[in-house]
Amino acid sequence: MSTELSGYKGNMFKFLKKENLQIGDIIRITRNDEFFEGILMPRYELADDNHIVLKLKNGYNIGIKLHREMVVMKIGVGAKPTYKLSHQPKEKTVLPTVAIISTGGTIASRVDYRTGAVHPALTSDDILTVVPELSKIANIKTKILFSLLSENVHSSHWTKLAQTVAHYIQMGVDGVVICHGTDTMAYTSAALSFALQNLPIPVILVGSQRSSDRPSSDAALNLINAVKAAAKMPIAEVMVCMHETASDTITVLHRGTRVRKCHTSRRDAFKSVNIRPLARIKGEEITLLEDYTRRDPKKHLITTPNFERKVGLLKFYPGLDSNTIDWYMDNGYFGLILEGTGLGHVGEYLFPKIRKAIEQGLIIGMTSQCIWGRVNMNVYDTGIDLQRMGVIPLKDMLPETALVKMMWVFSQTTVLEEAKKLLLLNIAGEFSDRTLYEK
Amino acid sequence: MSTELSGYKGNMFKFLKKENLQIGDIIRITRNDEFFEGILMPRYELADDNHIVLKLKNGYNIGIKLHREMVVMKIGVGAKPTYKLSHQPKEKTVLPTVAIISTGGTIASRVDYRTGAVHPALTSDDILTVVPELSKIANIKTKILFSLLSENVHSSHWTKLAQTVAHYIQMGVDGVVICHGTDTMAYTSAALSFALQNLPIPVILVGSQRSSDRPSSDAALNLINAVKAAAKMPIAEVMVCMHETASDTITVLHRGTRVRKCHTSRRDAFKSVNIRPLARIKGEEITLLEDYTRRDPKKHLITTPNFERKVGLLKFYPGLDSNTIDWYMDNGYFGLILEGTGLGHVGEYLFPKIRKAIEQGLIIGMTSQCIWGRVNMNVYDTGIDLQRMGVIPLKDMLPETALVKMMWVFSQTTVLEEAKKLLLLNIAGEFSDRTLYEK
Repeated sequence: MSTELSGYKGNMFKFLKKENLQIGDIIRITRNDEFFEGILMPRYELADDNHIVLKLKNGYNIGIKLHREMVVMKIGVGAKPTYKLSHQPKEKTVLPTVAIISTGGTIASRVDYRTGAVHPALTSDDILTVVPELSKIANIKTKILFSLLSENVHSSHWTKLAQTVAHYIQMGVDGVVICHGTDTMAYTSAALSFALQNLPIPVILVGSQRSSDRPSSDAALNLINAVKAAAKMPIAEVMVCMHETASDTITVLHRGTRVRKCHTSRRDAFKSVNIRPLARIKGEEITLLEDYTRRDPKKHLITTPNFERKVGLLKFYPGLDSNTIDWYMDNGYFGLILEGTGLGHVGEYLFPKIRKAIEQGLIIGMTSQCIWGRVNMNVYDTGIDLQRMGVIPLKDMLPETALVKMMWVFSQTTVLEEAKKLLLLNIAGEFSDRTLYEK
Repeated sequence: MSTELSGYKGNMFKFLKKENLQIGDIIRITRNDEFFEGILMPRYELADDNHIVLKLKNGYNIGIKLHREMVVMKIGVGAKPTYKLSHQPKEKTVLPTVAIISTGGTIASRVDYRTGAVHPALTSDDILTVVPELSKIANIKTKILFSLLSENVHSSHWTKLAQTVAHYIQMGVDGVVICHGTDTMAYTSAALSFALQNLPIPVILVGSQRSSDRPSSDAALNLINAVKAAAKMPIAEVMVCMHETASDTITVLHRGTRVRKCHTSRRDAFKSVNIRPLARIKGEEITLLEDYTRRDPKKHLITTPNFERKVGLLKFYPGLDSNTIDWYMDNGYFGLILEGTGLGHVGEYLFPKIRKAIEQGLIIGMTSQCIWGRVNMNVYDTGIDLQRMGVIPLKDMLPETALVKMMWVFSQTTVLEEAKKLLLLNIAGEFSDRTLYEK
């Protein structure tokens, strides 16, 4: 292997060779409307063969995945990088500041050895004691906001949490980390995604599937990587940081509106649905995997922290009693998210009640209990009928995200046409207009 | 490579070599309580290195995966097999008989080119015309039972379908294939698993994600492999036969109680949850992957085809109105399956209503909306509290299977203690008592 492309192999080696690039070249990588400029770095570890590593001007290394629509251009020859991974010359810089807000959950829990049960009890300072590495990554400000198992977190907590994050952003922190129970973390991450608009910095929810006093705990790695990401990632979105695999070495950052807890106990329980995770963190290497909104401290945060509680989520199943829909009408609900089957269907016996609900002014959105994929209500007659009566197909939105979004929408407006428009406006990357990687 | 182990390689080659086995040897493979006896066959294709292929006494070849707990013993030396794959000497055998029952769905549909929508219209005879290969695999008996999009299939159809399958089994067919829409196929497969007990032969549901007059249709392969499996598989269970991957070459057979539609549109939408599929079919090679109940035509079918409709499925989410539980109490429900969060939790604000419902005589079972994994209500205080008030943790059962099972249980008995016992009795492989492959 040629020394001017040290560490690169396979497809990436061929690609760089073809482009006549060498380690140390200053290059620009353009993809869609975005670009990265930096010095082409050597790869040290047992690397895969589809990432380029760039050293950005701000000093951070990022890994960028080879992509067909990507244009790579040499824009200068840099000084050859001379350091090795273990002896990187440390610039004398001021550490970034990260706020850690604790809401409870396993990550902030200890086992009660008397009953064997887990209590949310660890304080934020305790967390720093348990994971001392954090103080080398950032100046940490800690705050205990709640001490709740996450099944007890609901919309009034989302509101308070959004306001607390806003407070820290106004104080000028570089990133915010939120310790949260895993059970409803994805609901909260969706809620914050809608409540915190025009975010200048990353807001990262983190949890653990095994409490921090157990040997197999995932708490330390998740927390360290969440703080790392909050301190220096270029992504200014609400994200969830959890293990990518069962091994305790890699975490991924999931977009807050696209993530779901998909296993009761595994450490890699959280999955991005219908998109890839936004980024992967392995040691000091951060790989960006998806398009994202860039960090920009000059951006002005807009906080819209309220949620309407009279919004329901109803999962269809064979034999679901059609009278349950009356219940929502009789109890003053604004809207209902249906978890239909397949491409977005429910039994035809429900149609009269759905029609009546829409006539009464409820908004009914359709998602799929399949979880993966996109609703498409133009394929079968019954989907077409549902649309004609006013049911709104919610593209590839997760049912849980759709629920939270509708709760948020009705806190913004109760004018039906505005609410419908807002429901279909892409606020926080909660849906895609077309499906990639479909086979 | 030695000729006496033609086609074997890697680990499997080493293993067979170590055991001093040759092609043509008669061997017995024992795993747990089961064993297979047959002639060790050569492998012809680009085979993987972890399956043994045996020719059973009934003439069928099966692939068996190498497994640590497996004992392989040579019990005799057989005549060397002399045929090649393309010139297998055909024994003059009577073809097996397979009944194809059509209920509708995309697999039995045609696109209406006027509206672009899909109608369930194809007759069973049409299916034979579209897929003429079927007549070489088995003598086919066809029956149109319904012409329904599967979102319109409910428990009274399950009853009628179970009775129809029973009729064909009594007529002595070797296997039954059911064409069904994919939307609720997993609910129906669970229902038949409970309704058809002590099955002597395979009962295989099959669907397609793309209609059979579209170029990318998965209908033909799914149907061919379902008929193949119904004709000759040694597994006598209710199963679902669908694509394993996006490629149109391999199908898998999922246990009827463990399968879920996990994508709105992909051809590999169906996944076995918490176990592997029971078997894989690739061309003429059938590989058994999990323990199963064996085909035995002497077994006497017991049909228990009824389902109680006053059973509900309720998905918990932050802010779920606790009054919805009153609705089930007020409307004469026998029981409720909760789709809790994580290990089996719901917000504590629901506890008073749950306690009241149990006091009124409802059975409440807990499953997880995570889908994968097992509920464990002994880890957190709140889970322990729920159990104390009588909520029943339903192990690693799918929420949809748990719903169908509870509907079936209350058609068998309305005595509470008997119903609870039945709910926790493993009727059709619907749960495991311990979790394998957990990391």
